[in-house]
Amino acid sequence: MTDAGRVVLATGDDPLVLEHGGHLDHVEVAYETWGELAPARDNVVFVCHALTGDAHAGGEGGWWANLVGPGRPLDTDRFHVVCANLLGGCRGTTGPSSPDPATGRPWGLDFPLLTVRDLVAVHRRLLTHLGVERLHAAIGGSLGGMQVLQWAVDDPAAIDRAVLVAASSRLSAQGIAFSAVARDAIMRDPDFQGGRYVGSGRRPDHGLAVARRMAHITYVSEGSLEAKFGRDRIADGPPTHATDFQVEAYLDHQAEVFLARFDALSYLYLTRVMDYFDPFSDAGAAARAGSGGTDFLVVSFDTDWRFPTAQSRRIHDHLAAAGARSRHVEIASPWGHDSFLLEPPGYHDVVRQHLVRHPG
Amino acid sequence: MTDAGRVVLATGDDPLVLEHGGHLDHVEVAYETWGELAPARDNVVFVCHALTGDAHAGGEGGWWANLVGPGRPLDTDRFHVVCANLLGGCRGTTGPSSPDPATGRPWGLDFPLLTVRDLVAVHRRLLTHLGVERLHAAIGGSLGGMQVLQWAVDDPAAIDRAVLVAASSRLSAQGIAFSAVARDAIMRDPDFQGGRYVGSGRRPDHGLAVARRMAHITYVSEGSLEAKFGRDRIADGPPTHATDFQVEAYLDHQAEVFLARFDALSYLYLTRVMDYFDPFSDAGAAARAGSGGTDFLVVSFDTDWRFPTAQSRRIHDHLAAAGARSRHVEIASPWGHDSFLLEPPGYHDVVRQHLVRHPG
Repeated sequence: MTDAGRVVLATGDDPLVLEHGGHLDHVEVAYETWGELAPARDNVVFVCHALTGDAHAGGEGGWWANLVGPGRPLDTDRFHVVCANLLGGCRGTTGPSSPDPATGRPWGLDFPLLTVRDLVAVHRRLLTHLGVERLHAAIGGSLGGMQVLQWAVDDPAAIDRAVLVAASSRLSAQGIAFSAVARDAIMRDPDFQGGRYVGSGRRPDHGLAVARRMAHITYVSEGSLEAKFGRDRIADGPPTHATDFQVEAYLDHQAEVFLARFDALSYLYLTRVMDYFDPFSDAGAAARAGSGGTDFLVVSFDTDWRFPTAQSRRIHDHLAAAGARSRHVEIASPWGHDSFLLEPPGYHDVVRQHLVRHPG
Repeated sequence: MTDAGRVVLATGDDPLVLEHGGHLDHVEVAYETWGELAPARDNVVFVCHALTGDAHAGGEGGWWANLVGPGRPLDTDRFHVVCANLLGGCRGTTGPSSPDPATGRPWGLDFPLLTVRDLVAVHRRLLTHLGVERLHAAIGGSLGGMQVLQWAVDDPAAIDRAVLVAASSRLSAQGIAFSAVARDAIMRDPDFQGGRYVGSGRRPDHGLAVARRMAHITYVSEGSLEAKFGRDRIADGPPTHATDFQVEAYLDHQAEVFLARFDALSYLYLTRVMDYFDPFSDAGAAARAGSGGTDFLVVSFDTDWRFPTAQSRRIHDHLAAAGARSRHVEIASPWGHDSFLLEPPGYHDVVRQHLVRHPG
């Protein structure tokens, strides 16, 4: 059973109060579910999506369709899988391009800056709306894994099993630097218009395309780009300023597909959420995350240079040192950070096994 | 003795014929020299500069002042050191922002695409102009090392000792990909105006700044960024879209300094030169490079991920397999690709020793 819906989870009477002050009087959330909810409501697996994902994790064209489905690790014959578009996103959930209820115009840069805690607060409201108190599991890759970690810190009793894939508890200086270049490319695009582009007929597509092209390079390993494209050209001939190497055409294609489905303001807001994420700067966070008995699995990939294994190990080390149940598994994969969307040997098995482990 | 000059090295009567066809009827070259030319004209060390360098390698503010000077590895008490701004550049030598003699207007994208062979052809003309037939040594880092390699291929008898630092005989797919993003950021900046920006009062500064910020990340190691900046912020306070982390302010500063001294068209042309460089695709190239008895030293740095050690090793392997005299030395350095401009332990010593080795 697949279901898709949109639900209002904050109103003027029940606003979403944000971590850094301010509040949102209207939050609408797009979500999808797969599999039957058990009568005891104890078989829910919540999927937290990454920076540019959306609620459509499973089913035809789902970004995690290899993981979500009948007989898959997130087995929809057994689990009720839920995925919601993030707060700040642009795929059905309220974000900076949504209308500001106070003015009726798109928020733009007047939308408040968010934190991972704010994103998780919306997930928690969604669970309440669905009548679910406790998750069989929460799972996410990259920014999705950050949400799972924050969720365990904020509501330790809510999650039986947590799976953090290719995640980080804090970006490195290099990670912040890549983010800064991407955000700069967007904000300095004249079509960005100070964030007031929605409805103007002009979007900062050039800036967003530059951001995506650059980010995509960091999502894949040097070796996988080399194996796939090397120095192959589209056609023989003298040098040209135009797209000529196949890897250039590949980046062009990635940017084109991305522009059709994503919004520059959401990109700004959600990358900034990642820049500031640093839960273990609160000395009590790891102990809180473990205090509900959550069983953590932290997965990393050996060729991931955007969120390298050392960053996953740091999550595990903090949790374990605070007495939480945690395992870290590094998977060998040629594909870099994007491995969390693919099926390198061993990855799906370790997730599958973790989701059926007995708690306690 | 320091000298600086500008000289016309191609004219309508003696045009520079380019590798991919076409020719330049006017090539002016800016160069500098340090140290006395010996009466036998046998003490010349030619410095080939990298992508955004210029002729001012030595002396006050010189980009290689730690390497060039009295008692330094490029000892100006002993050697006559020469450095010239590259063809296609913007620091005194003819490039795409120079006037097209046929129209009197700046060339823009009508300037012909260049190859490393074309850059070297200008160096060779400069030597002829200076009355020098044979180099005691040629040395260069990054794109500079590419020029040294091509020079040895094109004129094997001209170079006694060659030093290639942090160079590559061909960019990887990842290297071409980073180049593509940078070029895209420049060319899609509306102020680029199809390359006709010179004299318009508007330059594609936003695009060039994005290109430089991104490139700078790739010039330094993850570890050095982390050690220098980590997640330090400029000031405490809530999240902001503005520059907040110190690594962001650092990139802003790098971009600002760069914009004051470099030109977007030169950036496009010289990065494209690097994309296409692949001398060993000619099966006889390595043997030719070694046929004049040139003694090669290939230096790489262990944390350089832009031009990793494997790329230097590939140069050495090709040369050695073809019977050339070649050594490869990997230097431990925390600073990534930029190490070639710095002084990690052992680096200057190995260069110094190579420059005084006896040939044959």
